[in-house]
Amino acid sequence: MKVVQKYGGTSVGSPERMRAIAKRAARQFSEGLVHNAIVVSAMAGETNRLVDLVRQVNPSASPRAYDMAVAAGEQVSVGLVSAALESEGLRALPLLGHQLGIVTNDAHSRARIQSIRRDVIENAWRNGMIPVVAGFQGVTADNAITTLGRGGSDTSAVALAVALEADLCEINTDVDGVYSADPRVVKAARHIPKMDYESALEMASLGSKVLHPRCVELAAKYRMPLVVRNSFDAEEARRTWIMPLTTEEALESPVVTGVSTTKAVARITVEGFDPNTTILKDLFQRIAEADTNVDVIVHDRHPRGHLQSVGFTVPTEDLEKTLAAIRSIQSSPGCANLQVSQETGLAKVSAVGVGMRSHSGVAGRFFGVLEGAEVPVLMITTSEIKISCIVPEASADRAAQVLHDEFL
Amino acid sequence: MKVVQKYGGTSVGSPERMRAIAKRAARQFSEGLVHNAIVVSAMAGETNRLVDLVRQVNPSASPRAYDMAVAAGEQVSVGLVSAALESEGLRALPLLGHQLGIVTNDAHSRARIQSIRRDVIENAWRNGMIPVVAGFQGVTADNAITTLGRGGSDTSAVALAVALEADLCEINTDVDGVYSADPRVVKAARHIPKMDYESALEMASLGSKVLHPRCVELAAKYRMPLVVRNSFDAEEARRTWIMPLTTEEALESPVVTGVSTTKAVARITVEGFDPNTTILKDLFQRIAEADTNVDVIVHDRHPRGHLQSVGFTVPTEDLEKTLAAIRSIQSSPGCANLQVSQETGLAKVSAVGVGMRSHSGVAGRFFGVLEGAEVPVLMITTSEIKISCIVPEASADRAAQVLHDEFL
Repeated sequence: MKVVQKYGGTSVGSPERMRAIAKRAARQFSEGLVHNAIVVSAMAGETNRLVDLVRQVNPSASPRAYDMAVAAGEQVSVGLVSAALESEGLRALPLLGHQLGIVTNDAHSRARIQSIRRDVIENAWRNGMIPVVAGFQGVTADNAITTLGRGGSDTSAVALAVALEADLCEINTDVDGVYSADPRVVKAARHIPKMDYESALEMASLGSKVLHPRCVELAAKYRMPLVVRNSFDAEEARRTWIMPLTTEEALESPVVTGVSTTKAVARITVEGFDPNTTILKDLFQRIAEADTNVDVIVHDRHPRGHLQSVGFTVPTEDLEKTLAAIRSIQSSPGCANLQVSQETGLAKVSAVGVGMRSHSGVAGRFFGVLEGAEVPVLMITTSEIKISCIVPEASADRAAQVLHDEFL
Repeated sequence: MKVVQKYGGTSVGSPERMRAIAKRAARQFSEGLVHNAIVVSAMAGETNRLVDLVRQVNPSASPRAYDMAVAAGEQVSVGLVSAALESEGLRALPLLGHQLGIVTNDAHSRARIQSIRRDVIENAWRNGMIPVVAGFQGVTADNAITTLGRGGSDTSAVALAVALEADLCEINTDVDGVYSADPRVVKAARHIPKMDYESALEMASLGSKVLHPRCVELAAKYRMPLVVRNSFDAEEARRTWIMPLTTEEALESPVVTGVSTTKAVARITVEGFDPNTTILKDLFQRIAEADTNVDVIVHDRHPRGHLQSVGFTVPTEDLEKTLAAIRSIQSSPGCANLQVSQETGLAKVSAVGVGMRSHSGVAGRFFGVLEGAEVPVLMITTSEIKISCIVPEASADRAAQVLHDEFL
């Protein structure tokens, strides 16, 4: 069996945690798991420390300099986890991005992996070594150091698993899997033992912090089984599998798999543009250039001849740069009367589940429940397997609670 | 003019210090110094922090895993100093060991540089960029990360200066140069504005912590001028030049350039071996394998037929492993009656100066002064330009004081 095991920041957070990883690897090695590659994050808090240092030195440092400083955190983990494996009598091969040929594009600080040298890992295995790989980092074709953006180590692990045609990619973190809602908010939240990629992707995108959406996307694309487990737990403890469901499993899944909440959302409304202009394209292009992730977009075209409007949400922390991007096009033709307004203190509450596809009436129940709980709904957006609404942040937890009570 | 500027741990110890480096580089760049390469150490304390982490995880980590973790400190400095240069409107090219093709042998954690890709720096210069290079690290021909050992960043800087045929290599540190004695011990210690490589090498080897001996050795081999300056000082502040002296300068040098003290020295005496065995070779070979730096060796061959003895010193911290190495050969033929004794709490006090070569009577004055100050001398060793003696650690400062009074 070929397995890629990724250990996140808290799972490598101290010498003790690293020794625990090594003990587990030694046990698994003695049980015959000799085709194992370990991918590590920076020790908990280390990446934030490095990012803070960069900001203190130069808040507008080039992404290349930024990546250089920030990628060092994973390197430390690679050396230390290798040393830990050695203390268990295992042979470790420490590998940085460039040593494993993790080539990315040159979009520094949010680079995309283009290729990985599978032979480096396979040679290590042939020599009885366990490769220990730095997550989060790569190199461009010109050998400049890049990083993959937040959550990048998960993506590194899945990309490596895909390159190796591994049997599974294990994500070791400090929670034992994905829940039907945030257990801190919804007391009755249930552990989900198995889910399909689409639900996992929607849950990830919606703020369940367990997995990064890009990692799930990549796993889904190559049908790579993911398993999320708590590295602080015993081997037999529960975990969440993310993989294709059998038809039977899919039919048995609940209509709604989980309820997810994202806070610190801001809404922007742009009104008064001519329907015949390219304003919508220009607007979102400019916002994308400002590196803002626009989330919900609601645009209901008014009858011909009327001026149009569009509403959308962004993370509150991106509000200022988004507004600046919008101002930059107010001088374009047809934008003279553009009116921009904004509102902060909002949240997004969503219900996700592949079961929705085959069940009608979910939307009705969804809005009925919120109405009954007197939660004002400001925006609505839906996909095949998701219903989301924007509500005041103060009502978000209550909304999540009543939706969970209704569906789960 | 081509200049390599190395900044040590305290000189990159904080965001403020990095911005100070950038301001200096900007000023120099505007004044026409466009062929400048900056070599950086890890931020003060960082390497120790990483070494401690490795020891906590596995006290006997492989040098390869150790190097991987420990080399990360310089990478952070490279990213941050590059960011600092950018904030001054300069273009920086951050470079790790492998990116600059700093190829070393595979003696991990004390690797020797074999080659450097000069073209990488020259391309950067052609594009108006200032290269910022990670000191202390390199890669083997197989692309494994290596480190050069303590003080390695100085060596990186000199090696780069040599590869570039630079006009000089500047060592920026937290002292303004080399002194005739440790100013904390000898009040009258004088700043040395200019000295030759041999004196600098003896002073470096003897514990004046300003420069690493390997860096001076390399500079001497290629006649690369070194200048030691305090990065906390103004540009016009004094500094020490280390370079070939003119005949006139050499004649004018004092007989003794400096007095140097090394503490925490232990002496080992091995007695009772047959003069016809290979015991001396075996002994020091075994000790070298234990990675101990033997310093003073005194062996006065007794008349034929007598059993022999040898005395030597090691840093106190290496005493245990040295004794273990000696014990490992006590079962060899002719070693049955080997007697080993040791003494700690010693120090080495030395007087150094090229002037000694042409002045007789230095030794006489040296021992006369120590006798007058009632400093017991336990061992003596001399070279062409140096006289050293082993004394009780408690008398070391007094010995340095009276020798300085006598010669300087």
